[in-house]
Amino acid sequence: MNFEFHNPTRLIFGAGTLSRLGEVAREKGKRALLVTGGGSVKRNGVFDRAVASLKEAEVSVVECPDVEPNPRIASVARGAQIARDANCDVVIAMGGGSTMDAAKVMAAAVYYDGNPWDMILHGQDNVYVPKKALPIITVPTLAATGSEMNKGAVISNDETNVKSFMSSDLLYPYVALVDPELTLSVPRHQTAYGVCDLITHVTEGYFNGIDGTPIQDRFAEGVILTAMEWGLKAVADGGNLEARTQVQWASIVALNGWVQAGTNYVPPVHMIEHTLSAHHDVTHGAGLAILNPAWMRFAAKSRPARFAQFARRIFGLSSNGQNDLETAKEGIDRFQAFLESIGCPTRLSQLGISDEKFAQYAKDTVLVLHDKNGRLLGRPPMSEADIIEVLRAAL
Amino acid sequence: MNFEFHNPTRLIFGAGTLSRLGEVAREKGKRALLVTGGGSVKRNGVFDRAVASLKEAEVSVVECPDVEPNPRIASVARGAQIARDANCDVVIAMGGGSTMDAAKVMAAAVYYDGNPWDMILHGQDNVYVPKKALPIITVPTLAATGSEMNKGAVISNDETNVKSFMSSDLLYPYVALVDPELTLSVPRHQTAYGVCDLITHVTEGYFNGIDGTPIQDRFAEGVILTAMEWGLKAVADGGNLEARTQVQWASIVALNGWVQAGTNYVPPVHMIEHTLSAHHDVTHGAGLAILNPAWMRFAAKSRPARFAQFARRIFGLSSNGQNDLETAKEGIDRFQAFLESIGCPTRLSQLGISDEKFAQYAKDTVLVLHDKNGRLLGRPPMSEADIIEVLRAAL
Repeated sequence: MNFEFHNPTRLIFGAGTLSRLGEVAREKGKRALLVTGGGSVKRNGVFDRAVASLKEAEVSVVECPDVEPNPRIASVARGAQIARDANCDVVIAMGGGSTMDAAKVMAAAVYYDGNPWDMILHGQDNVYVPKKALPIITVPTLAATGSEMNKGAVISNDETNVKSFMSSDLLYPYVALVDPELTLSVPRHQTAYGVCDLITHVTEGYFNGIDGTPIQDRFAEGVILTAMEWGLKAVADGGNLEARTQVQWASIVALNGWVQAGTNYVPPVHMIEHTLSAHHDVTHGAGLAILNPAWMRFAAKSRPARFAQFARRIFGLSSNGQNDLETAKEGIDRFQAFLESIGCPTRLSQLGISDEKFAQYAKDTVLVLHDKNGRLLGRPPMSEADIIEVLRAAL
Repeated sequence: MNFEFHNPTRLIFGAGTLSRLGEVAREKGKRALLVTGGGSVKRNGVFDRAVASLKEAEVSVVECPDVEPNPRIASVARGAQIARDANCDVVIAMGGGSTMDAAKVMAAAVYYDGNPWDMILHGQDNVYVPKKALPIITVPTLAATGSEMNKGAVISNDETNVKSFMSSDLLYPYVALVDPELTLSVPRHQTAYGVCDLITHVTEGYFNGIDGTPIQDRFAEGVILTAMEWGLKAVADGGNLEARTQVQWASIVALNGWVQAGTNYVPPVHMIEHTLSAHHDVTHGAGLAILNPAWMRFAAKSRPARFAQFARRIFGLSSNGQNDLETAKEGIDRFQAFLESIGCPTRLSQLGISDEKFAQYAKDTVLVLHDKNGRLLGRPPMSEADIIEVLRAAL
């Protein structure tokens, strides 16, 4: 284990904390860009409460509404221009992962005259590394991506059908203001996709990290066990504030770096899903629910002991004369059954995706992140043929 | 769960990272106060390697040697004066928990003309809250207190026989530079006390936090399981770098706030141990090994389900017709047996401490941290009689 860890985001967590938005924003200035998504925050009154809190703290608001799911780089450019024109001091993202990711990149794009797509890793020769960004405040309204307390953002380019990420210390939010009450009205299927997304963040590190990280293994297992137990409850009864709270907290720690510290992992399932989303505008968590079990069955063959550990510690399976690969497969079946039980799709056909463009997906995926042999990074590294094999298994 | 979390310390972890000390210190200035303890770093060459790295980065060094175990407020005042006189830009702590804690308080005391004891909570009417501190770099040479990545410090006053703590965001180190190679030469008994200390940090939150923190429960259990497994190996073979690495990492996460986030706990076992140390100059980890099992037997009576969970998840005990309290007691016996197996004392008599001053210890402990009924905070709150009962059980 040889690594650095630094997450300077200040987290304010708990039901009712939305009322502190103004106080927190005022610490960074007097004019905020308020970035939102499809409008649910306006319909349910959260937007008005946020604006009231800001006004009370004498922070004026400039709006950037309508960030779409799988947010486009064009939206990032639009928001950055609004912030520049209005001379904003701080960017506030209020919404799901798409809104937060777009807002985070806007905060850096404000200070960059070029095309913000230059900052997103997409196989270009020179990635533009931002030097400066506006301070960011995240107010998640969905428990899923964990973007509220990390330095990553995922953006799509609809001209090139590429969806990819940027990662910069500048994107760590100044404050993550997390009020689980804001998620009470999230529809059942979106709740389930969020649970799948957060669990997949954890499985990526668990299965693709280095050997010899026993504490991180336990942390990962703890998040998965809790997300399964409380995720079921949140899906069954969206109005259960305790379930919403536990799932929201799980989604934060699933990707704020605590669970993965020192594991030095790369997330191959996310990379493949990004390609699917880029081509089909799939909801990220739904795409992951389909791809992750298929990927696990592929990867278990080269690392059966690790997948058997997952089966034992998550599902309490014992080996009873089975070899590790048999135990591993049983664990993956159980995991897939859990995803189905909360209403996630687990086959590509459920989203109407056929094998027509599998070769293209494999090629696009490998382009973004590959080793010197042109294979997608992960354990094991994957050739384009391997990716096609996983996609076929998920048909 | 309603809480704030903010740990801005940058962690650089791994064998060999000591060589980066100069580079990191240079980010904060050109003159460093280098605080050390009893001199082991000078005997084993670590001091010379640190100074060489600093010199190479053009950082000059002013020394503050000889910080004692259970560091005294007089040492804090001495170090702060040296830093003031030499106009230091940064404080580097290289040693165990005592050295780090003293150095952290020095960094704040530099800017305070009064007695630094005013900053330490000891029952006074007005605790002095520092406004400013020099940046701190911690280089731990022992895996134990976790002080390298948190905002706490524990200091003793030998005039009044009080040992207590301060907690301030200003004390978060700028960088924790953690090189597990530096712990390879730690003697067997100190290694064991460190393992006990870190486990006790975790059990305090686990047994004294609020209900309804399932992820924190799992994190705590993960740290305990890992510390027990790898602690045994580190005690058996001090030269085992992997064991040293795992124990060091466990000691960091045991008290950097990740495990306890949202639990809102108070550490009663530490509070009682501080009194013992103040009166008898006991090694902190050894005192904890004696007090923690005795406290657990006391506290289990009022919260048997929680202690039974500990027994089941840490020691794999099943209930087999026992009630929770019986399972709990069996778990505590196992835990005490583990502490004995690594060479920790578990009776006060092993340290030559009798019941002569138990009433005084109880009174001193309650003075520092009590509820409005004059009871020591924790689950359950403890009267002076309760503290005496626990001390008697540990005789």
